Amino acid sequence: MLMGEGVEWGLHCCLVLAWLDEHAPIATARLAEMYELPPEYLKKRLQPLVREGILESVPGARGGYRLGRAPERITFMDVVAAIEGRTGAFRCTEIRKRGAGAAAAETEFGKVCGIAKVMGRADLAWRRELAGETIADLVADTSDKAAQRARDFFERVNG
Amino acid sequence: MLMGEGVEWGLHCCLVLAWLDEHAPIATARLAEMYELPPEYLKKRLQPLVREGILESVPGARGGYRLGRAPERITFMDVVAAIEGRTGAFRCTEIRKRGAGAAAAETEFGKVCGIAKVMGRADLAWRRELAGETIADLVADTSDKAAQRARDFFERVNG
Repeated sequence: MLMGEGVEWGLHCCLVLAWLDEHAPIATARLAEMYELPPEYLKKRLQPLVREGILESVPGARGGYRLGRAPERITFMDVVAAIEGRTGAFRCTEIRKRGAGAAAAETEFGKVCGIAKVMGRADLAWRRELAGETIADLVADTSDKAAQRARDFFERVNG
Repeated sequence: MLMGEGVEWGLHCCLVLAWLDEHAPIATARLAEMYELPPEYLKKRLQPLVREGILESVPGARGGYRLGRAPERITFMDVVAAIEGRTGAFRCTEIRKRGAGAAAAETEFGKVCGIAKVMGRADLAWRRELAGETIADLVADTSDKAAQRARDFFERVNG
């Protein structure tokens, strides 16, 4: 059970787009250079973030990406959900209703299987943690030095 | 990001083995019938649980499975970790040290990337929830009717 690289890439791109806000929109090629990522592949990974309004994609030769809304309003959960989807990691296939359970009346079962309930509670705890952290928090928790380095690097590669 | 069916199967098997403790060991074929699961496939899914001591596998014609320790001492986390492994769902590949970060001295970076830190905190919240729930809790939360139905079914199919 592993997330795709898109989550790491997407979160780092949100961070760097917050840092580089005054230079936005940032071309895909530039954004890719910030982390040595393959540009075409990165573009694909960012598509769901654009679809969800987390990023804004500006078309054209001078186009690129900017944050779709204020960093205070983009949570880790938003980014993870956009890329990995909103369904929990555990999928209940209701095996409790098969075999020994097959003969039981539907009314005998609780609405949610006890196992799915616990897995759902864990999933909720995970989501809560991610929903409580925004890109603005991430900016605040990251050193000014790193932000400055990113800006310097961008200005250099952007000519 | 989806868990394999092994987690659902494994947890339900722990529950039914707790219910059927007095009949243990329970043959693979019987255990499979309890939930209409493919026996060979189920055997494979349960192997990591045996390896971790969550289940005990008794060899021979009259062999089968029983819980490897008291249901109070088997947590959901034990079962999930045995099947899905102990690494978190998020994999940090340290892209912060590439591109714009490549020129920075190693000492400039915090030990853990700020993004990985948040993802790790969420993972911990998830684990805590699963570690706080045991098979004994699950037994207590499941209706006596379901337990009785499982016992009746077993006695019927076991001849």
